[in-house]
Amino acid sequence: MSPESEEMMWCHSCREEYDALDAGTCKECYEEASETEEELKREIEDLKSKVHFLRLSSPIESDLSPSDVSLHASSDRKGVYPPVPAHKIVLMSRSPVFRAMLGGEMEESRSGVIKIEDVSYNVLCSFVQYMYTADTLLNEQLACELLILAEKYQVKHLKFFCERFMTSRISNDNAVTNFAFAHRYNSKNLLESSLALILDNISTLTQREDYKDLVEKDPRLVVEIYEAYLSRQVNTAASVKELQNV
Amino acid sequence: MSPESEEMMWCHSCREEYDALDAGTCKECYEEASETEEELKREIEDLKSKVHFLRLSSPIESDLSPSDVSLHASSDRKGVYPPVPAHKIVLMSRSPVFRAMLGGEMEESRSGVIKIEDVSYNVLCSFVQYMYTADTLLNEQLACELLILAEKYQVKHLKFFCERFMTSRISNDNAVTNFAFAHRYNSKNLLESSLALILDNISTLTQREDYKDLVEKDPRLVVEIYEAYLSRQVNTAASVKELQNV
Repeated sequence: MSPESEEMMWCHSCREEYDALDAGTCKECYEEASETEEELKREIEDLKSKVHFLRLSSPIESDLSPSDVSLHASSDRKGVYPPVPAHKIVLMSRSPVFRAMLGGEMEESRSGVIKIEDVSYNVLCSFVQYMYTADTLLNEQLACELLILAEKYQVKHLKFFCERFMTSRISNDNAVTNFAFAHRYNSKNLLESSLALILDNISTLTQREDYKDLVEKDPRLVVEIYEAYLSRQVNTAASVKELQNV
Repeated sequence: MSPESEEMMWCHSCREEYDALDAGTCKECYEEASETEEELKREIEDLKSKVHFLRLSSPIESDLSPSDVSLHASSDRKGVYPPVPAHKIVLMSRSPVFRAMLGGEMEESRSGVIKIEDVSYNVLCSFVQYMYTADTLLNEQLACELLILAEKYQVKHLKFFCERFMTSRISNDNAVTNFAFAHRYNSKNLLESSLALILDNISTLTQREDYKDLVEKDPRLVVEIYEAYLSRQVNTAASVKELQNV
């Protein structure tokens, strides 16, 4: 082998030539990493098939077995929509609030009728669908409304599902509203993400109408924003000073 | 940089030095692979939390909500054990056989009583537990008995779970028995694995008692073994001839 050919190498992954400066891993680690990736993919397949097995078909779509409880959207005062059928075993397994409500001596346990306040029929259907399938198609409005229900009935998995959707859609246009919303419904991830964006753009965002509304309606939250802003400034100044001293 | 230092590289993964002959990937592919691994791990975490959410607590362990159906192990003729409680929605979602049985006009649908033949109370409990949780602790005997139930009630996920357990435990001691078992209960994976082991050790295994029993009880299966053996020999001979001709 000539010295030139020794200096150039072939990447086992992309099959292209590279030189020593662009080296990534040794062969042993490459092979280990490939095996790990295969294992992880197998684990994903296993888990997906488990999820598929564990999903129940939502009683809204198919009436597989007679339901023993029904949910009524109380915002539908005209009674235009039918009640949403469900099974106690499903609601009680997913939510400690339903467990207490349906397992005890409460009215709902006897009658099998649960009234859900301030919710529309469509949101209620999505809520019940999630309880059976761990999935539902979100948009921004639905994510907010389902998060409120998830917080109320302590369905942590659904709350996290909505939080993640909302966090991925934070922008200057909704950061202030989301911050107030996250505060109200105890949503830590959304709170942190929206606060970070507000602090990054504080001079722009404080000019907006939604910010002025917040000063009007809930000044305590605005104080929190400023406290976080000052604390960040102090930390930044301390880091700069530390760097200068080094 | 001296020419010597250019020839030696540091692996980004194990942090050790290696030379061009032991090169694995370029830096770009290494970084991509690391990102992929992170993504796969996040997907696994998501799926695990989904499985956790979708699991129902087995009615044998906790009586969360009143059951609407009960399973009776018919091998327990003395009635020593209680019937196993369950919910129609769960059994019907997991098994097309239970769906037909409980959704139609059959006796079981009306009475809510399902008699399961040739099964012990403990196996029945594991079966029901799997329907709620997608999990149960297996041993070799239990895996066989649950596979039979899974085949009978068409619970594919459980059948695969048992098959995988049994396949991982195939040895010379049980290959012939497993081959006959796999044939009877239509278990493709177990059939292939046990047949492969039998063909690898045919001269030893044909001396065993279980093989002689099979000749006695089900000679058709023994014919299948020999046919596979001959077909393998013909294929091997063909490959050897091909290699010689190259």
